Amino acid sequence: MFGKYLENVRKMSPIVHSITNYVTVNDVANALLAIGAKPIMADDARDAAEITKICSALNINIGTLNEMTVKAMFAAGKEAKKLGHPVILDPVGAGAGSFRTETALGIIRELSPDAIKGNISEISTLAGALGAGADEADAQAGGKTKGVDADMSELINDENLLRNIRLAKSLAKVTGSVIIITGAIDLIADENKCYAVRNGHPDMADVTGTGCRLSAMTGAYIAANPQEKTEAAAAAVITSGLSGELAAERLGKRCGNAAFRDAMTDSLYLMDAQTLEKGEKYEIY
Amino acid sequence: MFGKYLENVRKMSPIVHSITNYVTVNDVANALLAIGAKPIMADDARDAAEITKICSALNINIGTLNEMTVKAMFAAGKEAKKLGHPVILDPVGAGAGSFRTETALGIIRELSPDAIKGNISEISTLAGALGAGADEADAQAGGKTKGVDADMSELINDENLLRNIRLAKSLAKVTGSVIIITGAIDLIADENKCYAVRNGHPDMADVTGTGCRLSAMTGAYIAANPQEKTEAAAAAVITSGLSGELAAERLGKRCGNAAFRDAMTDSLYLMDAQTLEKGEKYEIY
Amino acid sequence: MFGKYLENVRKMSPIVHSITNYVTVNDVANALLAIGAKPIMADDARDAAEITKICSALNINIGTLNEMTVKAMFAAGKEAKKLGHPVILDPVGAGAGSFRTETALGIIRELSPDAIKGNISEISTLAGALGAGADEADAQAGGKTKGVDADMSELINDENLLRNIRLAKSLAKVTGSVIIITGAIDLIADENKCYAVRNGHPDMADVTGTGCRLSAMTGAYIAANPQEKTEAAAAAVITSGLSGELAAERLGKRCGNAAFRDAMTDSLYLMDAQTLEKGEKYEIY
Repeated sequence: MFGKYLENVRKMSPIVHSITNYVTVNDVANALLAIGAKPIMADDARDAAEITKICSALNINIGTLNEMTVKAMFAAGKEAKKLGHPVILDPVGAGAGSFRTETALGIIRELSPDAIKGNISEISTLAGALGAGADEADAQAGGKTKGVDADMSELINDENLLRNIRLAKSLAKVTGSVIIITGAIDLIADENKCYAVRNGHPDMADVTGTGCRLSAMTGAYIAANPQEKTEAAAAAVITSGLSGELAAERLGKRCGNAAFRDAMTDSLYLMDAQTLEKGEKYEIY
Repeated sequence: MFGKYLENVRKMSPIVHSITNYVTVNDVANALLAIGAKPIMADDARDAAEITKICSALNINIGTLNEMTVKAMFAAGKEAKKLGHPVILDPVGAGAGSFRTETALGIIRELSPDAIKGNISEISTLAGALGAGADEADAQAGGKTKGVDADMSELINDENLLRNIRLAKSLAKVTGSVIIITGAIDLIADENKCYAVRNGHPDMADVTGTGCRLSAMTGAYIAANPQEKTEAAAAAVITSGLSGELAAERLGKRCGNAAFRDAMTDSLYLMDAQTLEKGEKYEIY
Repeated sequence: MFGKYLENVRKMSPIVHSITNYVTVNDVANALLAIGAKPIMADDARDAAEITKICSALNINIGTLNEMTVKAMFAAGKEAKKLGHPVILDPVGAGAGSFRTETALGIIRELSPDAIKGNISEISTLAGALGAGADEADAQAGGKTKGVDADMSELINDENLLRNIRLAKSLAKVTGSVIIITGAIDLIADENKCYAVRNGHPDMADVTGTGCRLSAMTGAYIAANPQEKTEAAAAAVITSGLSGELAAERLGKRCGNAAFRDAMTDSLYLMDAQTLEKGEKYEIY
């Protein structure tokens, strides 16, 4: 089902402006190129809005935010909204530090992102603050941030699946955003429906930046498929997860995380609609 | 012809100070090491000039400029000029944002870089603002920036070659800089002559930072060959393009852009004067 | 002897907060993941202290310091000391620029790092300023910084070994820190004893960030082995050096520095206690 969304990315080749952390920014750029999109980065307030004008999507990632870049996020975000570009928020570390939490909430309130992608700790923090899915969020209160690459293989499983789907839909309703919660199972929800995606590979948790790449890719997918944001976001999640599976297949035996990182990017580059549809594993709730 | 320029880099092992974007800075550092030079980065105004003192060249790349780093660019640039070190400017995104355009023009006016390397959009913007090659620059007015990695395989071809050579020579005359325009054909010009280089591989456009690496490498080549700046810059361009060709050869069949990125760097590392001269493809105009 | 220190890292999986340069930060993150630790980065003063709270160690690297990040270093450092987390200092470029030297000295004086890791130029500069090992430091006065990746294969050898061991012990006594001096032979000293480690491979000097990775890894090792800081630091040095040897073995013939970089990270990922103990090469002085 999801092949056409990738095809549209490759046809449109959208430029995605990423205001993102400097830890994984190179991975983000090469992942965008791998799926056929184009990266540009500008994180100074004097520059960011103008650069947004020549782009098709804006990806805001607060992984290493500072006072200067936060100004650029809002400047670019307002321009992107004015132009009707999709805005993606990756609230890295929300809940782990108040500057991060407040910035993420400010972006949600002022910019109404088209999609918000986080792990369950981050999403629960935001949901709690926004009064969404209070019951479900409370149940996650024990979920502490374990470093930004920590929770990928955890927390969402078959046992707590339905509760987390309710949380995602509830936050989607309150924010108007597509909500993406990453984990062993990934959820992609709007207020009416939720895709539960079972693609991915445990070794992805040993590579920094898989989540950052996904946010940027989500920007490209929504830019190229603006009428079906939820499906576009699900396609991005499946593409990312499947790149991990294909990397593990290509490498065969146990390898290191550097080889795995590159094999994921290469798998993105080589992926086509047919491969995607053959590999996609999802349910709809 | 160009082998000796690489040999001189490996003999001198120049330290190249790069004030560059955080997207591709790691690639820049490893590319410098690959050709036998040494990288150092310092982008705070309190630090940049002093660091320049222990270096042999300064590479200024405005890919993710901000108010702090712009101050460092000028501070380091003035020191480099005082010391007679070559200064390279990579005006990433000039024309796409006024802060970038103004900064690039300010650097040209105040620092007189030894070389300026851009794609045709960037160079046309600068030429237009500086009153160089007005007719040729106008003809490019339709060329819009398509993301910083976008234009590498485009725009300069056999049809428009002579016009672009005139543009490059004209801008070289006005600025006193060696002008490098990258594209399917790369041009390296001073006011009297222009090398048209046909090395390179289309897949280089799918890897972020090939241009950023080239700027830094140009700094190393000019530092090690100060009497022949134009030839040194052409040698850097050929080395870079040939690394893409050799990468494609090594990898054989279609691979991903992560493998290609690493294969380019490895090809730089393994390149010697003989390989360079065997592979160089250029004409002089 | 050193296998258990790695095992403890893998058991504890400490989160290491790194305020580090943007050149090699991605390598730092993946190296931490490779040894079983977890990375997080936050370099704004409004954010850094809070992020430190959820971590187990703080790694401060001044490779691309600026006025904003220096504030974050001190804010996070004070929090880390309050919480009893190990603090590691990598004084990149101390001696090459006064802002760097002063910042490094300020961190030593105010934060009393648990470990300080530098090359001989950097350590001599600090020792001289702190009145430690004056005779030994003077003897190094000719040692100029040759770029941040320059001195790894140089300067400490069997001829000057005993003098450098005295320098390391003397600086350890003055600062109360474990002192790590990297070179062809690496030294890890407290005031009473010094490990001289002979692991490593010359090609490591052609990859940017090997030192930055080591500092971060040292944070993880000390966090997981808090009762034996000197041995933990030595284990980190051995792990790093051995990853270079194993990379060279895996790659066989001469390869490029991109392949070598990845092979080092992969070797870290695949390393176990047995491999470490089989490969460790050290003497105690």
